[in-house]
Parts: sequence; C-alpha cells; structure tokens
Amino acid sequence: MSILVVGSVALDSVQTPFGKVDNVLGGSATYFSVAASLYAPVRVVGVVGTDFSPAHVDFLRSRNVDLAGLQTVEGQTFRWSGRYGHDLNTAETLETRLNVFATFRPQLPQSYRQTPLVFLANIDPDLQLDVLRQIKHPRLVALDTMNFWIKGKKDALTEVLRKVDIVLVNEAEARQYAGTSNLLQATHEILALGPRAVIVKKGEYGAALYSKGDSAALSFFFAPAYPLAEIKDPTGAGDTFAGGFLGYLAKTGAVDARAIRRAIIHGSVVASFTVEDFSMDRLRNLTWPEVAGRYEEFKRFTYFEKVED
Amino acid sequence: MSILVVGSVALDSVQTPFGKVDNVLGGSATYFSVAASLYAPVRVVGVVGTDFSPAHVDFLRSRNVDLAGLQTVEGQTFRWSGRYGHDLNTAETLETRLNVFATFRPQLPQSYRQTPLVFLANIDPDLQLDVLRQIKHPRLVALDTMNFWIKGKKDALTEVLRKVDIVLVNEAEARQYAGTSNLLQATHEILALGPRAVIVKKGEYGAALYSKGDSAALSFFFAPAYPLAEIKDPTGAGDTFAGGFLGYLAKTGAVDARAIRRAIIHGSVVASFTVEDFSMDRLRNLTWPEVAGRYEEFKRFTYFEKVED
Repeated sequence: MSILVVGSVALDSVQTPFGKVDNVLGGSATYFSVAASLYAPVRVVGVVGTDFSPAHVDFLRSRNVDLAGLQTVEGQTFRWSGRYGHDLNTAETLETRLNVFATFRPQLPQSYRQTPLVFLANIDPDLQLDVLRQIKHPRLVALDTMNFWIKGKKDALTEVLRKVDIVLVNEAEARQYAGTSNLLQATHEILALGPRAVIVKKGEYGAALYSKGDSAALSFFFAPAYPLAEIKDPTGAGDTFAGGFLGYLAKTGAVDARAIRRAIIHGSVVASFTVEDFSMDRLRNLTWPEVAGRYEEFKRFTYFEKVED
Repeated sequence: MSILVVGSVALDSVQTPFGKVDNVLGGSATYFSVAASLYAPVRVVGVVGTDFSPAHVDFLRSRNVDLAGLQTVEGQTFRWSGRYGHDLNTAETLETRLNVFATFRPQLPQSYRQTPLVFLANIDPDLQLDVLRQIKHPRLVALDTMNFWIKGKKDALTEVLRKVDIVLVNEAEARQYAGTSNLLQATHEILALGPRAVIVKKGEYGAALYSKGDSAALSFFFAPAYPLAEIKDPTGAGDTFAGGFLGYLAKTGAVDARAIRRAIIHGSVVASFTVEDFSMDRLRNLTWPEVAGRYEEFKRFTYFEKVED
C-alpha cells in the first residue's frame, strides 16, 4: 500500500552536545518519508522554495518518494534552528522562519487522492483538515500535532481528532490537550473523540499504545526505547517513528491490533537509528537487515513468558 | 527459600493530593516484608522503640514474618514525614527523626545466619556491610540505596556494591552514582564493580534490567509500570517492588536469568497494588489471585510476536 504524508520540508540548523549542523535536510514530511520509504512507496504533500537543493530532490526520488505533491514556490524554504542541552528530550527553538510555508495550502494531485494510508504530520490543523477533504476513503489516517496547535488552535485540532484513526503525540502534548497529568485519563479523553488508538511517545522511555478494546476498557501495549549509549541528535525521532509505524502497516497491508503492535516496534527501531546521527544521515545508509536485526532484539527486551496468540 | 531483610521499621506521616495519614506503619524493611511474605517466609533485622504498637507486631507475625531480629529499644521508633505534589515521582521530606534508629547496629540471630536470599534495604552502607559479615554463603544478595548515601558515603557504598549480586536503584540514583546522565553508561559502571545485574526503577515508566550476558555486551529487559488512573500514595513502591522481586525468587527457588525477568514483573505487580492506597493498606487484603491476575495482564502489555524460549 502507498502512504501519503503532508507536513513540512525544511532546512534545519541544529546544535547538540555532540556537534552542530547548518541548513541540513529536515522537516516532518521529509523525516517521515525517508523512514517510511524503507517499507513502502510514499507520496509527499508540501512546499519548498527555489533555494531547495536539487540534490535533496534527487535523494528523496532515489528512495521511491513521489514528489508530485511537492510545490516549489518563489522564495526560501522553511527554516528551523534549535538546540538540545544534556536533556535530549526537549529542543529549544532558536528560530523559526516559515518562508514559503507561511502561505502553503496543500493541493493533492489526482494521483494521490485514493492513497489508503495517510499521515497528517505536525502542521496547522486547518491544513490537516484541508488534506482530509481531498482524500477519498482512506483506510487509516494517523495524526501528529504539537503544543503550539494545542494552545492556539484547539477547536480546529479537536475537529481533526474526531476524523482520524490514530493519534501520535508525546507525553506532554497528551497531558496538555486533556489538561490532566494522568496519562491514562488524558488518552481516555482523546479516545472519547473517536480515534481507535492513541500512541504516546515517551522519548527514552519508549512508546505506549492506548486503544479501545472490545469492551469499554482500554487496551495497552508498551514498547521500550532501544537503549543507546549515545544520542547525537534527537531531531526527527517522532517523525521517523511515525514513518516506521505507517511504513510497516503499508508493507503488510494489515491494520488490525496485532499489526499495530508490530508497527510500533518498527517505529521504535527506525527512530532509534535516526538519533544515532545528525539530520537523516543514519537513514541514508540504513539497510533492511539492520532494521530486521534490531526488531529481533526488541522481541527479547520484554520477553519473560510465553503468550498464547 | 527464606529471605532476610535489613532496613528501617518506621512510623510515617504522609500527604499526597489524595489525602493525609499520620504515624502509620512504614519503613523499608516493613514494606519489603509485607510484600515478600505474599511469596515466602521473611526474616527482619531492624529496630523499633517501646512506642511501637503491638498491633503492628501482630500484623507482621500474621504474615509469616519472623521478628527474632527486630530489636526493641527504649525510646521512640524512627519517624518520617513527607509530602508528594502532583508529580508523584518524588517525595519532599518534611522531617526525619531517627530516634532509636540513630544507634542501631544490626545483630543477626543465629537462626538467620544461613538465609539464602538477602535484601539490604536502603540504610547506611556500613550497616549493610555489617549484615553481610554476619551472613554465611548467601545464594543471592540484593541492595537498595539512596542519594543521601551516594553523596555522603560513596566509598562505603562502593565497597558493598562490590559484594552484592543485584543492585536496585532508581534512575536518578544510578545517574548520580556514576556521574553521567546516560543510564546505559551509568549501569555499565555499576556492573563493572561486580554485581551481575542492575535493576533501575523508573516510577511510572516501569523498571529496566541491565545485566551481564555471556559476552561482554549488556543484556536488557524492560518492564512497563501497571497503568493506574490514580496513585494515592507512592510511599513504599520501591521496597515492595523489591519484596515482590525477591519473594518470587524465594518461592521458585531459582535465580537464573529467566527467573529474574519474571521476578521483575512480580515486583511491578506488587508495587502497583501498594500505591493504590496509603501505607500498606492495599497489601493487607491483597490476595494471590489478584497478584496472578495482574501478572497475566503484564504478559499482554508487551507482547507483539512469539519468542522462542
């Protein structure tokens, strides 16, 4: 199955305790695409300026990423610069220049409108709604968002939440949206809007799935993060988690509860590689056997007793 | 198998967002004993004052807890009072009155000296060493400690760490001991002293095992915490985790890698019950079917694919 993603394509400048890069390839749609394209064909909806290097375009094309929906507009590409301290869980944004992204309106090429899997990366919820209106009968829609939209556009965000199947958020975002410090209560509130599952990303603590089971009770799945002695640059971890997650679903063609659990492990695997180097450098040469090998390791990380399938 | 524990027997006064209790039964040795006694006989080494209620003694005896090593000394029992805010992960200590604990020197009755499993709860590392000197050929020794001893008695603590098999610490303590924010590096440093495993308690994020495998590489096991909509009082979570952990090992008589993993789940199960009510109130009426039921739930929490044993 193919996957459609709408989100930012950016040039990032990032400082971490391990180094510094300037104007490297970034953006939620880009990170997602590079990760998901390990598994399945990806279609990008986004915008870049005329300064966007043809080398980046070639790289994305080489990964089987369809750029028919990537508009090129007179002006500069979206730029983000940020810094991570020793707490690698939170970035301090130094500067955001929206540039051509400021007036972006997603337009889906005809060839995109029947894509079965959709990822609404972290952008203005009004634009996320705009994309959903242009899509016909998707099989599964997943959404990411951030504190900025929860604070500034909660109504529009709530409207999108009502229309999606899976919500990917980090811990602080789930708590902020629901206005409670208890994650169980927070995810319960989001699930009450309609989504079948909330996946909470917890950084070095892994990811947790809160989903509606057959009964009224919540069903849980907890995945650890891959233990790493060194994290060079956490940028893109969340978007490549989503890429591995939806990529796996696209590859297998299944979206049932079991596939969702395995997809979460794939998301964790891909994200763990992403943070080993700056920008998407580690993903450029990441091979399928490496992904499969780490997936096997995850099976052992939590195993303590046989479970009947 | 029997388990010996040395630690505090206390009267606690605790405030949380959910209520307040005064002079209730507390202390690391007490919490541990009540939890572990669900699984196996426990022998306590500790001290109380003449104010310690016979009702507490009767309660512990009713749980098959051997109190031959519990000294009663003229004066007041150790008292601790603390407060938890909405972040239930860290207690603010309001007052500590050591009372009879200030001059405590552990003395093991003859009947205790060949106990196969030993838990050195969080007390002065010199006292922990004192206990080890009185024990003959234990099969497994586990240790807990805290920031106070890491800061004030690091040399003595390091000497005990060299002599124990399993170290149970929370995240902040592991980082503090090793002087690094990376947990993998921190546990590696503790393992280099001799212990075969470090179990890092991560509160609402569960617990992680870092152990030496056959090769030089570390081996990992990650257990989530049981998801709770409400935590009334986190006091004793760590000590009852240790109680469920060593209790399970004592009950099964095995201390191999597989038993250790299952024991960590039992620790997580018992700790999850502890925090549902103040003091050890929830443990007083906790039944084996409840423990077994939650253990079964944990099997599903992390399951995504069959693993060959």
